[in-house]
Amino acid sequence: MNIGVLGAGQLGRMLALAGYPLANRFTFLDTTGHPSAGIGDVMVYTDQHHLADFLAKVDLVTYEFEHLPVALVQAIEEVRPVYPSSEAIRVCQNRAEEKALFDRLGIPTPAYRLVESAEELEAAARELGAPVVAKSVTEGYDGKGQAVLRDPADAADAWRAIGHPRLIVEAFVDFVREVSIIAVRGRDGEVVFYPMAENQHVDGILRYSLAPMPDLDDSVQQTADDYIRALLDELDYVGVLTLELFQGADGSLLANEMAPRVHNSGHWTMDGAVTSQFENHLRAIQGLPLGDTAARMPTCMVNVIGQEGDPAAILAIADAHLHRYDKSERTGRKLGHVNLVANSHGELLSKVRTCAALLPESPEPRFSFE
Amino acid sequence: MNIGVLGAGQLGRMLALAGYPLANRFTFLDTTGHPSAGIGDVMVYTDQHHLADFLAKVDLVTYEFEHLPVALVQAIEEVRPVYPSSEAIRVCQNRAEEKALFDRLGIPTPAYRLVESAEELEAAARELGAPVVAKSVTEGYDGKGQAVLRDPADAADAWRAIGHPRLIVEAFVDFVREVSIIAVRGRDGEVVFYPMAENQHVDGILRYSLAPMPDLDDSVQQTADDYIRALLDELDYVGVLTLELFQGADGSLLANEMAPRVHNSGHWTMDGAVTSQFENHLRAIQGLPLGDTAARMPTCMVNVIGQEGDPAAILAIADAHLHRYDKSERTGRKLGHVNLVANSHGELLSKVRTCAALLPESPEPRFSFE
Repeated sequence: MNIGVLGAGQLGRMLALAGYPLANRFTFLDTTGHPSAGIGDVMVYTDQHHLADFLAKVDLVTYEFEHLPVALVQAIEEVRPVYPSSEAIRVCQNRAEEKALFDRLGIPTPAYRLVESAEELEAAARELGAPVVAKSVTEGYDGKGQAVLRDPADAADAWRAIGHPRLIVEAFVDFVREVSIIAVRGRDGEVVFYPMAENQHVDGILRYSLAPMPDLDDSVQQTADDYIRALLDELDYVGVLTLELFQGADGSLLANEMAPRVHNSGHWTMDGAVTSQFENHLRAIQGLPLGDTAARMPTCMVNVIGQEGDPAAILAIADAHLHRYDKSERTGRKLGHVNLVANSHGELLSKVRTCAALLPESPEPRFSFE
Repeated sequence: MNIGVLGAGQLGRMLALAGYPLANRFTFLDTTGHPSAGIGDVMVYTDQHHLADFLAKVDLVTYEFEHLPVALVQAIEEVRPVYPSSEAIRVCQNRAEEKALFDRLGIPTPAYRLVESAEELEAAARELGAPVVAKSVTEGYDGKGQAVLRDPADAADAWRAIGHPRLIVEAFVDFVREVSIIAVRGRDGEVVFYPMAENQHVDGILRYSLAPMPDLDDSVQQTADDYIRALLDELDYVGVLTLELFQGADGSLLANEMAPRVHNSGHWTMDGAVTSQFENHLRAIQGLPLGDTAARMPTCMVNVIGQEGDPAAILAIADAHLHRYDKSERTGRKLGHVNLVANSHGELLSKVRTCAALLPESPEPRFSFE
């Protein structure tokens, strides 16, 4: 089975590492001009000719990157099975579509408004109550196109700065922690759920994901399972889907956004779960039975951002599992991650602090249950 | 770090899968004309020109296959670090050298004689007491060059059949089980030991390896640790070394043979130990800290031989981890293995039977502790 992957970054690399043991081979189609997978057969897409070569090589197609032209994915679907479908990409590329889907399925979100002018933006900020965050409904590769309005009067400046004809304006949410739920749906409709992870972002970049959470009420996991199952079934989805949420003090969940792919907040599963998110994605898209998603032990993923730090010292931490992406160092760049596994959450937090101290510019790890 | 690997079979493939996360890249030099690694950069060695290309690409060299011309490995050592050294290959290629080393280090072996004629073979069979097994001291790739003598009078026929000028003749041993010990020695001399595995061979092919053994006395593990440490230190060895032994009813151990590389009886570590033998070999040869060798849970490796069976059904077994080598089916060929992990040895044996039933021509699994 030759699996075609749209995108050729670290997620594709880790898919391939999980797929070789299933006797899969991998052909990547990079659309950015900067592939970094460093494994398998990497093709750079510049014209239709490359696409035809790619399609001739592969049996089915998946992606590690959702900022792809929908028309391209639809064209591929005419020729080869694509999992998840182009419909998942279409919805996830547009914040308005995504929010509408959440609304339709009864998945609560922070209050929001859609606006198409500076005046509407100002009115929305007034209605929702500043501060608010305004985002273009379609996002570029770099996460730009966002602005925080501390006051409705900032609307004109924010509108100009974002420079997009349609924005979504969201109220700030009072949350205790950021969490995510990852689930996998097979070609036969079977769904399995990973234990939710607590995520810590700094400057918009994920830094730590910890699972399972020691203080998570079963009913909260059940609620998250219900939300993501509704999304999976509605989209007739095949593969791994990720839903990021905010958890309030009362345990309630508000959906933030979803990603139609394996996700950084699921990297802990590589060493902490019976079956990794990467293997389960590959099992799903090939119609194989899904693997057990249970956590073996408390696990924390620590992202390696910008600088590699001291890999030898990291490997000296007991039960530390280093996953380097073989990329050159650059501020803010995801270069790898470390999975730390421990017998207890107390021991785990101690390892996380030890590891963070070996990574330059690592923020202070903070978990809500400490 | 670009790691050169001599040999390009499944062991090299699994080394690479363990090494990508350490940001290693792999270049294989195949000397058989039949590489099957299916990953990394594979070169086929036919002349010195290929060797120069290979050496220009790599930072250090290891091997997954010890039946290499010693002179070739010595020539490589002049240009690049080679771990383990050519000395380990030299000793392991010659049963007489290997036995002499065991003797020198006080590692007990089955009684044996070296013979250089049919007459000496007959005398040895008489002295040791038939049946005996006679083997050429240097082994080809295919494990041929062996004969069992049920009676000393079979000596002339056996001598002709083997057709080698020097044989080792071994007494049969009354053993309870076949076991192996795998250890890793770092560039700084640090040594770590894996829990011993019980191995079941059928027709000379490993079929099952189980670790840890539920009934293994600590003192037996300690004895095996002492034996392999003596070998590692004597050879100033760097990397993974495997020692296969027979265990008698009284717990005593007799060394059978050693392999200067990652080993099929250590594949269980990929899913059953904190750090796999492959990762630890790579850590050792790069001078990185060695990883924890502890077993997480009872684990059994089931080899997939000759036919793939039903991979989907195998993946449906809970906590089954399939490792396919992406080779075509052929009688007696190692096509992959399955690691089964369970909470108890009882549950594990039940999974092993389920798995064996899905693999055509799988022999009845039998463990000494059942």
